[in-house]
Amino acid sequence: MITPSRQKELKQLLNRIQIQDRSIDWDLLDQALIHPSFSTSYNNDYLEFFGDSVLRMVVVTFLRNNYSDRPVGDLAALRSHLVSDKVLAAIADSYGFDRFLVMGESARRDPKTFLSRLANSFEAFLGALYLSINNFSLIASWLEPHLESISKTILAQPAFGNSKAALQELTQGHWHILPEYKAIASTEPQVFVVEVWVNNLCWGMGKGSSIKSAQQEAAAKALPALVASLELQSQAEN
Amino acid sequence: MITPSRQKELKQLLNRIQIQDRSIDWDLLDQALIHPSFSTSYNNDYLEFFGDSVLRMVVVTFLRNNYSDRPVGDLAALRSHLVSDKVLAAIADSYGFDRFLVMGESARRDPKTFLSRLANSFEAFLGALYLSINNFSLIASWLEPHLESISKTILAQPAFGNSKAALQELTQGHWHILPEYKAIASTEPQVFVVEVWVNNLCWGMGKGSSIKSAQQEAAAKALPALVASLELQSQAEN
Repeated sequence: MITPSRQKELKQLLNRIQIQDRSIDWDLLDQALIHPSFSTSYNNDYLEFFGDSVLRMVVVTFLRNNYSDRPVGDLAALRSHLVSDKVLAAIADSYGFDRFLVMGESARRDPKTFLSRLANSFEAFLGALYLSINNFSLIASWLEPHLESISKTILAQPAFGNSKAALQELTQGHWHILPEYKAIASTEPQVFVVEVWVNNLCWGMGKGSSIKSAQQEAAAKALPALVASLELQSQAEN
Repeated sequence: MITPSRQKELKQLLNRIQIQDRSIDWDLLDQALIHPSFSTSYNNDYLEFFGDSVLRMVVVTFLRNNYSDRPVGDLAALRSHLVSDKVLAAIADSYGFDRFLVMGESARRDPKTFLSRLANSFEAFLGALYLSINNFSLIASWLEPHLESISKTILAQPAFGNSKAALQELTQGHWHILPEYKAIASTEPQVFVVEVWVNNLCWGMGKGSSIKSAQQEAAAKALPALVASLELQSQAEN
């Protein structure tokens, strides 16, 4: 059960975000802001798992309402930005989430986990809001303006919608090489199938009505996979 | 606009699944069952994108209502099975989805795309049902019994919940090697951090209150990444 002082604290957070607190499940909200470093048995692990799906649903609904004229590939690229740790941590940080997060002291002093703990607790927070009333209405009103301004920034980037350019930038920056695109036999008429290879591994496959659109799709799939792999390698080296 | 004969056909599909058709958006439903091989401009691409998030939300809600006593790692493993092409295609096939799917003739004759076209159109179908009334109530009633029986089958498998065993089986089967687990320095007290390496690449990292639980988490993360990579390689070889 949440203590009165903790509830008062969390009311402050809800006030900052301008969320009506009448229908909040305070115990869930409390749990959403408990980092696993504080307790391995009572923490926000589960709510983060649940909140991930809540977030995706809010994001695709936002994209449908605002960018339905865009090709699906653009929407998928926007979605992967909008659900990224970097973006979630930035939104959480704008409300000073870290102050409300209960965690082990040494974890708090670790700058390396700052991004992921903010992002994870933000997802857990969304999970708690959804589960308080079993719908999205406590979330969309304040989250959508964030999604809107971030989307505008992303869409304004020169490499947006041009995954080939972004992938090439990445492989040249890291290994001074270009991605290799291989057209492979398609089983459907007028459908081109292309794979993209980097460092002797196939990182993505794309289909399209032209070689170019198939290459773009392959690059769009390769990008997050390659970025995730680089992050794992850099964690491994530290 | 949907033709009367197509609407009659789609009513048959809804009858099979026992979905009340009063509030259905027929145009969306029609589009959900148009494969990109039929038309590159009017097809189910977008609804598949949207339906993916709808599906995940239905799945995590089902898991919350039925398996809330399970560790989060188990729920994540169950989710990845329940949203897999294999499972979605099997559910779609049980209602004879392929009969209702509009597609190019040569695509229909291609057995290699059978699984993915069923899975994709099933996700698009869920997207159309959600968007017809902007909630999940046309979906949960008939989909949950499927999720229940598939979950029971998965939970009964000996390797379930034992990702280390499953990963070992995979790497031995493919390369006659064992995954290598490396404990790395943790920045949090009483938290163990482990990486798992296969073929000189780090495929996953896990944290836990014991070395064993950290290894299980690392293996659980490595498994889908390695499976996806093998699938890409085998597509590349075909």
